[in-house]
Amino acid sequence: MFHSVTMCVRYTPDPVVSIQSQAGAMLEHMPFLAAYWPYVVTFLAALFVPGLWRKNDSKGEKNDAPKQYQTPDQAAEIKEEEDWMDYQNTLTSALPEDLQHIPFAYKRPSENEMLKRSQEYYEMVNGRRTIRFFSPDPVPIDVIKNIIKAAATSPSGAHTEPWTYVVVQDPDVKAKVRQIIEDEEEINYKKRMGQQWTTDLKPLRTNWIKEYLTDAPYLVLVFKQMFSLKEDNTKKIHYYNEISVAISYGIFLTAVQNAGLVGLTSTPLNCGPALRNLLERPPSEKLMLLCPVGFPAKDATVPDLERKRLEDVMVLF
Amino acid sequence: MFHSVTMCVRYTPDPVVSIQSQAGAMLEHMPFLAAYWPYVVTFLAALFVPGLWRKNDSKGEKNDAPKQYQTPDQAAEIKEEEDWMDYQNTLTSALPEDLQHIPFAYKRPSENEMLKRSQEYYEMVNGRRTIRFFSPDPVPIDVIKNIIKAAATSPSGAHTEPWTYVVVQDPDVKAKVRQIIEDEEEINYKKRMGQQWTTDLKPLRTNWIKEYLTDAPYLVLVFKQMFSLKEDNTKKIHYYNEISVAISYGIFLTAVQNAGLVGLTSTPLNCGPALRNLLERPPSEKLMLLCPVGFPAKDATVPDLERKRLEDVMVLF
Repeated sequence: MFHSVTMCVRYTPDPVVSIQSQAGAMLEHMPFLAAYWPYVVTFLAALFVPGLWRKNDSKGEKNDAPKQYQTPDQAAEIKEEEDWMDYQNTLTSALPEDLQHIPFAYKRPSENEMLKRSQEYYEMVNGRRTIRFFSPDPVPIDVIKNIIKAAATSPSGAHTEPWTYVVVQDPDVKAKVRQIIEDEEEINYKKRMGQQWTTDLKPLRTNWIKEYLTDAPYLVLVFKQMFSLKEDNTKKIHYYNEISVAISYGIFLTAVQNAGLVGLTSTPLNCGPALRNLLERPPSEKLMLLCPVGFPAKDATVPDLERKRLEDVMVLF
Repeated sequence: MFHSVTMCVRYTPDPVVSIQSQAGAMLEHMPFLAAYWPYVVTFLAALFVPGLWRKNDSKGEKNDAPKQYQTPDQAAEIKEEEDWMDYQNTLTSALPEDLQHIPFAYKRPSENEMLKRSQEYYEMVNGRRTIRFFSPDPVPIDVIKNIIKAAATSPSGAHTEPWTYVVVQDPDVKAKVRQIIEDEEEINYKKRMGQQWTTDLKPLRTNWIKEYLTDAPYLVLVFKQMFSLKEDNTKKIHYYNEISVAISYGIFLTAVQNAGLVGLTSTPLNCGPALRNLLERPPSEKLMLLCPVGFPAKDATVPDLERKRLEDVMVLF
């Protein structure tokens, strides 16, 4: 430590003397600087060192914020843009260069047909409720497969299809999933959420005991793939992967409802890494959502909630 | 500039002299430090200044990373947990304390019915394609209303329903939206994306000219609400708002498809603040997605893409 400081000081005298002789005339007219300028120079030089170091450290991460004032929106937009830049630096197209464009096969419905279909669809999805009480009765796996095939038709950023649907039907694995989640949820409820939040949750009658995780015939765990490996073993970043997976999950959930089954949308708090390890998913994937799927228990209840009206969610220009 | 430097130096002599007298004996045994210690002390003192400033700057933002090694997953989990803490600190329950729980009305379908429904639903959503060529033919607004009513049945974090669907049918407003997007997209394509990315996009035949933004009878702009105001004018944070809105959009897009219409899922890059201002949405909302809705043009084409197979997206335990 002392040795390296000594080395550093050993090399300073020559440039200091040289600057002194050149600045001599100027300093004669500034008595305080003439007396203390070596401190000032050393101070200013040292001020720059951490700045340079930070600049090097963030090289390639592009997180130096522009100097002008930004609203949160603008900052987020800039972050988005930077993500695009990263994307560009690592992407080689997954699509063939001679990708053919073909006519879109389409049959236009009548106005009446559109009105009827859109009304029926609304009524179907409006019947969906989040259910916390499941029957253990089995459901054919082919129904689940059709549901996940439907979810996998979702659009995604640059057609990267960044979703993995892990379906758990094995009772032992379901028990392990439940153990991981209940352990974390007990800490969430007792320590992390605090009095206020657990009081707020009381109307929904939730707690850290999750019987549905072993009752339901299937647990569907939805992972987002942050990136995948290209053939040359370099990273292919899956841009907009979180939005893409959530859109896919919306189609999944509607497929569950359409099949006559029920689900429970959840985002297991603090359980991602443990569940990822249990289900042997790679580090490039992150758990986003968990949904038990099956029949409701015979005595299932739901909170008597209302939804916002159309005029509260739609604005027309 | 010179004046403030002078002021700074004016106050240093006393402590310097004091340190010198106390450290005299020690320095006698270290000749280099004895000669140059004022530079070393000034240098080390200056090194600390930017560090202290950074620490104060980030106070309250909770972005001091814990010291032990974290995987990206674990870091994200901790961020999630902190968001929960923020949530807890600002939330007063939007739900009545005496919220009633009522029996869930349900009729169980037969196995054959589930298989048939899930197969038909898969075939319906599998017909969806992202369309870039729209007909200007009008679509009844009641169809759009049914579609958005369907989207608004989506689940959301703590039933906050954090979505605003802005529907633009006015030709002047559509033209303004197009202008904002094309201006940004031209910069995106010419400067921000670079040669690599524009080459990669070539197979999809996209560019910054977006005729569909004025051709389509409706533009649907989907905003996420980061928070809303409670009756006492305090913030009610909408947790998981981005995931919730994307799930809702998945239901929206399926409703578009089910009605016999087509759409184009997009995330306008760098246009959020300008479009939010144009459409008079509050700063608590952020543009997430934009989807033109209508009939396809008669000569619409689509790239000849394939989707991943079920075995590539589903894992069974």
